[in-house]
Order: sequence, then structure tokens, then C-alpha cells
Amino acid sequence: MSSDVGLLSPVWAGTDVAAVTGDDAWLRAMLEAEVCLARAQARLGVVPERAVAAIAEAAREDRHDAADLARRARDAGNPVVPLVRDLRAAAGEAGPWVHHGATSQDILDTAAMLVAARAREVILRDLDRVLAALARLAADHRDTPMAGRTLGQQAVPTTFGLKAAGWLAGCRDARDRLAAVRLPVQLGGAAGTMAGYGERALDLLPLFAAETGLAEPVLPWHTLRTPVTDLAGALAAVTGALGKLATDVILLAQSEVGEVAEPAAPGRGGSSAMAHKRNPVLATMIRSAALQAPALAQIVLAARVAEHERPAGSWHAEWQPLRECLRLAGGAAETAAELTEGLEVFPGRMRHNLDHLRAVLAEHGEDGGVGQAPALVDRALEWYTRKDR
Amino acid sequence: MSSDVGLLSPVWAGTDVAAVTGDDAWLRAMLEAEVCLARAQARLGVVPERAVAAIAEAAREDRHDAADLARRARDAGNPVVPLVRDLRAAAGEAGPWVHHGATSQDILDTAAMLVAARAREVILRDLDRVLAALARLAADHRDTPMAGRTLGQQAVPTTFGLKAAGWLAGCRDARDRLAAVRLPVQLGGAAGTMAGYGERALDLLPLFAAETGLAEPVLPWHTLRTPVTDLAGALAAVTGALGKLATDVILLAQSEVGEVAEPAAPGRGGSSAMAHKRNPVLATMIRSAALQAPALAQIVLAARVAEHERPAGSWHAEWQPLRECLRLAGGAAETAAELTEGLEVFPGRMRHNLDHLRAVLAEHGEDGGVGQAPALVDRALEWYTRKDR
Amino acid sequence: MSSDVGLLSPVWAGTDVAAVTGDDAWLRAMLEAEVCLARAQARLGVVPERAVAAIAEAAREDRHDAADLARRARDAGNPVVPLVRDLRAAAGEAGPWVHHGATSQDILDTAAMLVAARAREVILRDLDRVLAALARLAADHRDTPMAGRTLGQQAVPTTFGLKAAGWLAGCRDARDRLAAVRLPVQLGGAAGTMAGYGERALDLLPLFAAETGLAEPVLPWHTLRTPVTDLAGALAAVTGALGKLATDVILLAQSEVGEVAEPAAPGRGGSSAMAHKRNPVLATMIRSAALQAPALAQIVLAARVAEHERPAGSWHAEWQPLRECLRLAGGAAETAAELTEGLEVFPGRMRHNLDHLRAVLAEHGEDGGVGQAPALVDRALEWYTRKDR
Amino acid sequence: MSSDVGLLSPVWAGTDVAAVTGDDAWLRAMLEAEVCLARAQARLGVVPERAVAAIAEAAREDRHDAADLARRARDAGNPVVPLVRDLRAAAGEAGPWVHHGATSQDILDTAAMLVAARAREVILRDLDRVLAALARLAADHRDTPMAGRTLGQQAVPTTFGLKAAGWLAGCRDARDRLAAVRLPVQLGGAAGTMAGYGERALDLLPLFAAETGLAEPVLPWHTLRTPVTDLAGALAAVTGALGKLATDVILLAQSEVGEVAEPAAPGRGGSSAMAHKRNPVLATMIRSAALQAPALAQIVLAARVAEHERPAGSWHAEWQPLRECLRLAGGAAETAAELTEGLEVFPGRMRHNLDHLRAVLAEHGEDGGVGQAPALVDRALEWYTRKDR
Repeated sequence: MSSDVGLLSPVWAGTDVAAVTGDDAWLRAMLEAEVCLARAQARLGVVPERAVAAIAEAAREDRHDAADLARRARDAGNPVVPLVRDLRAAAGEAGPWVHHGATSQDILDTAAMLVAARAREVILRDLDRVLAALARLAADHRDTPMAGRTLGQQAVPTTFGLKAAGWLAGCRDARDRLAAVRLPVQLGGAAGTMAGYGERALDLLPLFAAETGLAEPVLPWHTLRTPVTDLAGALAAVTGALGKLATDVILLAQSEVGEVAEPAAPGRGGSSAMAHKRNPVLATMIRSAALQAPALAQIVLAARVAEHERPAGSWHAEWQPLRECLRLAGGAAETAAELTEGLEVFPGRMRHNLDHLRAVLAEHGEDGGVGQAPALVDRALEWYTRKDR
Repeated sequence: MSSDVGLLSPVWAGTDVAAVTGDDAWLRAMLEAEVCLARAQARLGVVPERAVAAIAEAAREDRHDAADLARRARDAGNPVVPLVRDLRAAAGEAGPWVHHGATSQDILDTAAMLVAARAREVILRDLDRVLAALARLAADHRDTPMAGRTLGQQAVPTTFGLKAAGWLAGCRDARDRLAAVRLPVQLGGAAGTMAGYGERALDLLPLFAAETGLAEPVLPWHTLRTPVTDLAGALAAVTGALGKLATDVILLAQSEVGEVAEPAAPGRGGSSAMAHKRNPVLATMIRSAALQAPALAQIVLAARVAEHERPAGSWHAEWQPLRECLRLAGGAAETAAELTEGLEVFPGRMRHNLDHLRAVLAEHGEDGGVGQAPALVDRALEWYTRKDR
Repeated sequence: MSSDVGLLSPVWAGTDVAAVTGDDAWLRAMLEAEVCLARAQARLGVVPERAVAAIAEAAREDRHDAADLARRARDAGNPVVPLVRDLRAAAGEAGPWVHHGATSQDILDTAAMLVAARAREVILRDLDRVLAALARLAADHRDTPMAGRTLGQQAVPTTFGLKAAGWLAGCRDARDRLAAVRLPVQLGGAAGTMAGYGERALDLLPLFAAETGLAEPVLPWHTLRTPVTDLAGALAAVTGALGKLATDVILLAQSEVGEVAEPAAPGRGGSSAMAHKRNPVLATMIRSAALQAPALAQIVLAARVAEHERPAGSWHAEWQPLRECLRLAGGAAETAAELTEGLEVFPGRMRHNLDHLRAVLAEHGEDGGVGQAPALVDRALEWYTRKDR
Repeated sequence: MSSDVGLLSPVWAGTDVAAVTGDDAWLRAMLEAEVCLARAQARLGVVPERAVAAIAEAAREDRHDAADLARRARDAGNPVVPLVRDLRAAAGEAGPWVHHGATSQDILDTAAMLVAARAREVILRDLDRVLAALARLAADHRDTPMAGRTLGQQAVPTTFGLKAAGWLAGCRDARDRLAAVRLPVQLGGAAGTMAGYGERALDLLPLFAAETGLAEPVLPWHTLRTPVTDLAGALAAVTGALGKLATDVILLAQSEVGEVAEPAAPGRGGSSAMAHKRNPVLATMIRSAALQAPALAQIVLAARVAEHERPAGSWHAEWQPLRECLRLAGGAAETAAELTEGLEVFPGRMRHNLDHLRAVLAEHGEDGGVGQAPALVDRALEWYTRKDR
């Protein structure tokens, strides 16, 4: 059986987000969705209380094997069908109450939202580390002059503080969008009419939401994919904002520029061929995420065109890209936290590179000042601080 | 000289959004950005009042030729450089006050936001027509039973009202996202420090915003592309929500299903080969937009990774995809308004198709009812109405 | 540690291609690349013969752990750096001959080509099953009349044989493109000059190619990505051709059309909510692949813009999408083999659906014949047979 | 009426490829397809000879207006339907012989191939200029030492000749793929059975191919999209290979590196804000193409999943992205010809930058030589020359 452990994805291998997005985490979330559903139904009096305990016991993670389910998922096109079969068998007399009134998509979509909610916590935590580090860099280097560069050419002076403030603003925008995404339970039954959930089906919605800690949707969203498209878009915004920062670091760390360096660590940045090199590996990994996430998000965006009450393929095409977006954003955020918290800044080298530019500007009678850069840093920090209150 | 008039894009050719997104509209918006900048600077006392009049005169649209500018744009990589040259020449003594302190990106990004703001008005207007039509369909067919279909197979009954309510919810989500996008002016000068705008540069920001009717940004966003990525994502959400609706219409209008038909119009839906056919052309055109916009939006999302203070290529790669997203969303919305306002619904055919399903369900001892479909329609309409208050 | 076993990818979980594309398979391929390099260098007399044996022993798969390497890969941005460290430690006195003259990319790119070569064998084998099955369907139903459908509407008659012949032609085109992709070794050393490989470096190229069974490149292709872009494009062509077939099957299997059905199997096509349903799950899984692969291929296409002698990010962004393209194509091909070999065709239902169309055509005085459909089937089969000789 | 003249696309505005890909060029190609069809049918004796003359006269370009057709295309979802109506009206008694047996897609797909064939000629011509210029650069600088750079860091020495040889190899690969794409006529009639073309329909295929100068397909390819997917993929390969070259130029031209400069021209590379700057605008424009084409190509790749005998939307979604790929590739090629033919190379600066690297390498006891770089240049040039024989 094939098994992936992140060998081709250094940006997220071994990071915290990886721990909450693996196949095991999805399996746990599916089990949890089934148990929460039974609990909510018990509160409505639809499912007997004693069945809930049996279902919870049947849903113990150690009784289920993701690899086995993955293989059997091919019979139905999704892993919920074999999982429900196993749960019913394990639940004994409570078997008929397992997955009561539900459809596979109710469970898998709810599980996806549970996974997303946990991954988002991790991502936001690391983004907050990035934001704090960038705010410090912006404040510390409010007045540190350096060359502004456009189309790869030295243009006019700016300050490193303004560059960091820009990174801050971009990352903050992305953080806000991710934090704002609404993650609702899915509860529609066979074709979105909630028919199997009984007469009080609409009352079940807030109860299921409460059990899972997720939001309550207006309608079943089997083929109304706003939650996943919003999420994928926000995750691509995160990798994009971090990718901008990483790209600037790579360019500023070039041998011929040398204005910043990644934080040193034993063994970090080594090359298999060149002992003398110190590669910007953190930024490189972040960039690798930024170069993948938009295309993956696009798969999810395109899946919005979902036919009838459940599509034949576009739903199934969402799962892996959405998960990978979570991982890439989370891996990039954790990597960026390490990068920004330890970034080495070389004001001397900045000034050295700037001297040449100022000489050229003087020749052309142009201004060599940093303009409003410090004032713009203040403005960005004020905005950022206000947001956080 | 090559010239496109929409021959390959029936979804937006001749629609209202086309009229506000053509090269001429972009040229007008660039001219307007220059004039608004001079006006805002005059209010600060930076530019003489009489220069403003000369600049406005020089910026009369009939004095500029988009095709000529397009060709000359190759020297600088963007059309603002030759435009400023022309404006300075035309403004006589006021020439030096043209584009005072500005960089090309200040003008082109502001122009993009002006074009986007106008296109958005048109798109929202047509989306509102769609929403109103869908609300009517949902209410009218709250209890009209039909087969719910999953993976292309008849599943369990639903109502056409719930299907329409789902379309409504999806389109409303998309409308909300589009309406919420913040469209700010761009004002950064050569490298985003506002150096050329003088000591009171930060005071210029709200004045320029007021002159243009656009929002005020926290920082110059030359390489902080939140406004365009938000916009592109929202436009893809619009085409996606409309594409879902269009796909359902195409499937329901299939010869063998026949449950809905596009509004009839003289000459509409004809085939060059088959006199007997009535093609779902409105839905087909909407789908053609939904199949393009996510990939175009992705180009814009990916361009967030913009190096330094102005990127060499990724900014330039945004323009055409962003414009095309506006057109596709606008064309799809106008087309969908026509489609939904005149959609023919055939409850008899729905019932006929459902009869077979109910017989099958009865054989399996399954419920043949529509479940909570009518209640869900009420819930969606209540949500929609509340939103609009 | 997170570990994926295919839970979110039913289309390839447990298929043959999965077995040759997992992280373990990549690890094996990297080890093999190192051993083949040592062997080739020994043939040139650069590396001592006895070192080769020690390296081969050090490279035994059971001495290495993919999960551990994945975590340590973060220090260098790729898994080869820690792997080489381990190999050198394990090889004792032969340690210095491990990875002699090589750079990480030489090993990882060569490993990617080895993985691709093995996956391609599997994919081509399953595509050949598909082609054979389609040729049979085309021949068997050369004259079986059915409705041709355009824009979802019955148009004019065709034959099911012509439909199958079209699927055959599309799949054959894709197969040819995949088979034609050249998969070369990578051998460039630190910056593509082969400096570390010594004076006879160019002689090493054919020897390394021979050891690995891969092709010999003109130049080191560290940043000349033709092999991976060709490969990704061909894999997307495979999923596309299979996706066309799958989409037609889904549409023809609709409850209201009923002209084909997926092969029945115990437990296949079940729903977690509806006992009466028989879902087209094989076609659905194939479609899920076709909806993902183009976007993943695009990441690889875009990575062609690789800076200098090794890019900071775009190379790293290729690995996972390329692997996923291999899996999606392989999973889709194996699934399509099962689908096409057992596809149930219902000529009676085809004729029934056609009767209505012919009546309509007769009303309009249009021809109700199948035109050249049978002759076109013959033409396609002749072309297909000729190709295979 | 909206009209685009390339204002947002400096990379192709006013280039030769623009002249053969505009809406007027597509209109001409559609007219030509109709006339060629009539001619081919006349050679079979199906259409009277005198009708051909009337049709050719009716198809004079000056009798048709693209903008008017674009608007009227909305009734049918494609521009062929109104065009045929106009042609029939204009052809008088020959009217019934216009578009005889054809379907819209026969004409539009054939027109697309005609446009593609002409655009390809232009693109290949400019690619050949690029290849010749790169071969000269490779030969001239076979031994010019410079720093090889990986992950943005100076790594080990290489030669500028090897860099140019790499560009050459990448562009040659792309050229070969583009030149190899087969561009066939489309001829299928209403649903691909050629029913309307009469008994000798298959004999019409080679005649129509001969009249148009296009290739003969095995089957009608209405929903077998190999020609367009091959084409889009090859065009993305062209922009990718050129984008790699352009990115290297931008990086080498950075103020702090200064090893190459774009060819100087009056007014070229100017900034609207900074008189002292010389921007790498040619490379920037090329990069803007490379950043768009893969996503556009993906739309075409994804459209391979085309349902039944004509899809409702995915065919329509191909047109504009395919045209834009042609333009981007052509604009990038013409721009790259200018860039490579006039590229300024500064061996002194290369040596200066290298001195530092060699000192570092010496400290680490590493080799500071260029390895096999000159020999690899010879190898690449030999391969390139052999190919051209």
C-alpha cells in the first residue's frame, strides 16, 4: 500500500498543520461527525440515548483503518459508505441508528469543515507570529534606508521598515480573510431535502452545529460550495502574501545584494554539492507553496459548477486540493514564522547599495530621500494595532 | 491593426459590461485618474488651479487614440508612459504639473479600480435581477415536486422551489462577496514612498480617493495586491454560482428530461444545421464564462507574489485576465437575468419523471415525500429578504 | 506524523499506479539513482569498484525511513541532502564516493524520471486495455443507432459504434503522446557544468543513462524543464481523454436516458442513503481525475520559468503536482479499463430514445439516417490497427 | 461598442501575430472555410460550380462586419449562425449551397485552425530569429566565465555561453513541439456523422483539407479536442521557454548584478517617474506572457472533457483562451527576437562578480573552474545544427 509522509513537500512535512490534516485526521473527523450527528439526534429525541454510547464506542478511532477504507472507497466513490458499514456492524443493536437519515456528503463535508477548523487555528496562530515579527521589523527599521527596486532596478530610496510594513499589511489582509470564512456543518440527507431526518429536521441543524462547534448553514450546501470556495480562496491569499515576503527575502539575500539573511541554524541551508553556500531554504519552501496553492484553489473554485443535488466528479475533485491548500498555507505560515522571527537585516549593506543609487539620482538632480516611508510605517502600524483591539 | 469586438465571446459581446470595460473605457479611466490627481493636488495647493483646467482639457478623450497608445506602450511596458508624454505636450505650460509625483502604476491601478467600480455596478444590477427572478421561482414552485438527482441518477423527490432557492443562495453569496470588495485608489509614487507627492503626501490620499469616488488604502499597494485578488476571486464566485444554475438548466432541458426550457425568442437557440433544435444557448454562454473565469482569476491570485516595489511581469500579467473576469461575470449575469426571468418550468413533466422514481422507491419501501423542501424554501427566502432590509 | 493512504483519492487508492508512486517508491528511486551513479562512475574508473558495493549496501531500502527524511528535508529544502548524509555515514570508507560530484537535483530529477518511467508502464498497460475494449465496442456497435446529442439536445442519429470509436481515437491520441515523452537522466553537478564529475564527465552521461534505463539528455536540464512539462501535459491529455468518455457514460446512464450502465459488481455503486440507486462510480472517479489534472499540470508548465541554474521554489513546486498527475492518470486508466471492459449497452433503449427524435426530424423533413457513422467507425478502426502494427 | 486594440497587452500590441489573430482575421478565416467547403464540394460534383463563384463573392470580407456578427452571435451562442444567414442572403440563388451539410463547429474549428496555422508561421519565424541569436551568443561566449547561481546564491562558475546554450535548448524544444502540432480541418456535420455531406462525404475530407491547406483528421473532432489541446500546450511551452530566458535577463540586469542589459533604443525602458532608470521592458513583457499562458492553456486542456457530440459551454470556452495563447506566444517570440539579437553582455562585470565567488571557493578548497561548460556548449550547438539539417 502506498503511503505518503511528506517526502515531496518539505514546506509542510513535520509541521503542526500536517498533524491535523493527514488521512488519520480526516478519518477521525468523519467518525466525529457521525457521533455528533447521533448526539444531536438524541437531544431531539430521534435517536435513543443508549444508542449514542454504542455509536461512540463503535467510532473509536483505533477500530478503523484508513488504508482499508481508502481501498474500499472505490466501490462507492467515497470513504463514508464503507465506514458506515463498519460502524453499523460494530454498533450492534444501535446499528440502525448509525448515520440515521444522513447521506455520505453530510458526513464528508462536515468532516472537511472540522479538519479545516482545526487547521485554521494552527494557521492563524502561526500567521499571528508572522504579524508580530513583521510589526517589530517595521518599527525597528522605520528609518533604515535602502534602495527601492522596481522591475529589478534600483529606483529611489525607501526604508526597510516600509518594506516590512508592506509585508505586514499583505499578511494581515490574508489573515482577516481566512479568519472570516464561515465553516458550517453539512446536513441535507439523500438529496438535500433533509427527508430522512424526520419532521423536526430543521431543529436538528443548530443542534448538530452546536455538537460540532461549526456554523449553521442557511441551506444544505451539497452543491452550493461557498464554504469551500471561500476557504480555498483565503488559503491562496495566505500563501500569496507569504510568497511575496519570501520572494523579497530571496532577492534581498542574493549574493550580490546581501541585505538580509535567513536565520542561521545548524545544518540549515546546506547544499549537497557546495559547502560554502547558505541557501534561503525557508523562503524557498514558502515560495514553493505560493506557486502551487492558486492552481489548487482554482480546482475548488471551478467545482462550484456542481450539477443537480450532487455532482458526479466535481465534489470528489475538491477533497485533495482543499486539503493540500490547508497544508501549504499552514506549512508556509509556520516556516514564515521562523523566517521572520529570526531574519537578519544588514543596514550597512543596505546603505552601501544605496550609495550608488544616490549618486546616480544626484547626477539627474533627483531627490534621494525616503519620502513618506517612515510616516507610512506609522500609518500601517496604527492600522494593524487598531485592528487587533 | 488588430481590433477585437467580442466575436469569440458571445457571453459578453454587446452586453452592458462590455461597454464599460473596452480599451476605450480603460483609456478614459486613465485620463480621469490623471485629472483627479491634479484636482486633488490643487486642493492641497500643490498644483496651481489653472493647471488643472489645462490638464482636464488635454485629457479630453477625443484627443487620445487607444490603438496608438497600445503600440507605443511597448517601449515602456505599459500605456501610461506614452499617455503622460502626450498629456504633457497637450497641456502646454501646465505640462510639468501633469502626473506630478506619480508613477505609471498609480495611474493604471487607479484606472483599473475605476473600471472595476463601474463594471461592478452593472454586474450587481444584473445579479439583483437574477436574485429577484430566483426568489419568485422559489416561491412559486415551493411545493412543485420533482426528482432530486445525484451522480446523474434520480435519487429522492425534492421541489423545484428548493432547487431555485439553492440557486438563489449561491448567487446571493457571490453577490455579497463582490459587493464587499474594497476598491482603493493607488498612490505611491516611484517606489511606494510617495516621495514625489511632497510633504503633505498623506493628506493627498483622502483627497484623491474623494475625487475618484474610490476607497482610501492603508498603504500604497503596488505589490500588495489584495484589491485585485479579492476582486478576481469574487468575480469567479459570480461566474461559478451562475454556472451552477446554468448547468442545472442545461441538464433539466435535455430532450429526455424536458423539465425546463429557456425563454423563447425569435431566432434564439437556432442551429446552423438543424431546424428542429432549440438549444439552451443562454445557459451555454453562461457556462462558457464559468469554465474560463477560475483560471483567469488564478493568474491574478498568483500575481500576488510580486517582487520588491514593482514586479517585472506579474503586474503586467494581471491586466487582461482581470478585465476578462469583469466581462465574463458581467456577461454571465446579464445573460442569467434573461434566462431566469423567462425560464419556462414544466411541472407536468417533472411529475411524469417523478412517477417512475416513486414507483422504484415504493418497491424498496422508501419514502417518496419531499421532506423539508418547502420549509427550506421558506428558510432561504426569509434569509434573503432579511439580508435585503 | 501525518500519513496519507489515499483516503481522499478513491480514483487511485489501491490501484497499481499507487504502488509505484508513493513516498517509499520515491525513496527507492533516489537510492537507485545514487547507486546507478556510483556504478556508472566505476565503469569510467572514477569511483573504485569496491566502493560501489558498499554504496549499494548502504542504499538498501530497509536502512532508510521516508518519514524521518521528510522531516529533515526542511533543513535543505529537499530530501536528498539528509539522504546523502545518511548514505555517507552508512557507507563507511566508501562514504566520500557517495553522491560524488553530484547535486541534489541530479538525484531527485533522475528519481522522478525513474518513478515516471515505472508509472508510465502501468498507465500504458491500462490504456491498452481501454483501447482494446473500445475497439471491440466500436466494432460491435458499428451499426447500433442512437441519438446524437449536441448542447444536451437530441440532434440527429448516430451509432454507438461511432461514439466508441471517438473515445478510442481520443484515448489513442493521449496514449501516443504519453508514450512519446522522453525521460532522461539528470546529471549536471552543482550548477550544471558537470564540474564535479571530472574530465570525462560527458562520457558519464551515456553510462548513467544505461545504468538507469533512462534517456540521455543534450544538456543538464536543471532549469530546462521540457521533460517534466511534456510529461505533465501528456498526463493531462490522458485524464482528459478518459474524462470525456466518463462524462458521456454518466450522461448516457442518467435515469431518464438509460442507454448504458456501468458493469455491475457486488457492493459497487451503492449509496449510503438510497438502497435503490446504482451510481456510475467508476465514471465519477475518472471525472474527478479529469477535473484535477489540468490545474496540476499547469503548475508544472508554469515552473518552466526557472531562474538561473536552480530556482528558489519553482523546482520544489513541481514534485507533488507531477506525482499527483501520474496517480490521477494511472488511477483513471485502471478505472476506465474496468469501466470499458464491462460496460453494459442497451440498444433497445437507444432505439426507444431515437424514435422520438426521428419523429421530430420527419416533421421537419430532415434526414433520420446515421450518415457515414459506420464508415467512420471502419476508418477509425483501420487507423487504430495500422498504428499498432 | 467595445473594441480592444491591445492597450492592456503590450507584449503583443502591434506585433505581427496581432495582425493575424484579431476578430477581423477570425472573420476572414470563417469566410474562407465556407468558400473552401463549397469549392471542395464542387470538385466532388455536389455543389454546382457557378454557386461557388456566388458564394465567394458573398464571402468578400468587406461585406461583413465583425461587430455586428458578435452581437448577433448571442442568439445562437456562436458567430457562424448569423454569418451563414448573411451569406445565404447575399448569395442569391446560390444561397442554399452555402454551408451545405455543415454545422457551425465545422466552420469555426476550421477557421481556428486556419488562424492558428498563420499565427504559427509568424511565431516560428520569430522563434528562429531567437534561436539564431542564442546560438551566436552561445558560441561567442563559450568560454566567458560567470557565476552560476542556485537559489539566488552564487554557486560555482559557469560560462555565459552555457547559459545561452541552455536558453537555446529550451527554446528549440518548444519550437519543435509547436512545429509538430497537427492542424486538421473540421468536417462532421450536425452530430459528427457527416450525414449532410452526402454519400461521398469521406471523399470530401481530403478535398476540403487540400483547399484549406490543413491536415486531414481521422474522425470529426467536435468533441475529440487533441488539435487544440496539443496547440495550447505547445504555445505554453513557447512562452515558458522564453519566460525562462527573460527571467534570467531580468535577474542578470539587476542594478547590483549588471551582467547584461537589454538593447538600447530611443525611448525604450523609460519610467514615468524616474529619468535615470533603464527598465528591462522587453524581458518584462515576455514574462507577462509566460505568467498568463499556462492558465489559459489549462482552460483548453480542461475543455477536452466535452460531452456527447457537442458540449454546452466547454467548446465555447476554448476560443478566446486559444487565441490569447497564440498572441502571447507570438508577442513573446517577436519581443524575444529583439531582446536576444541586441542583448548587451558585459564579461568584465561577470568576471568582477565571479572574483568574489572564487575567493570564497578557494577558502573552502573548492574548485573554481567552469567544468565542462565549454564542452556542453559545443554539444548543444552540434545538436542544434544537426536538427536543422
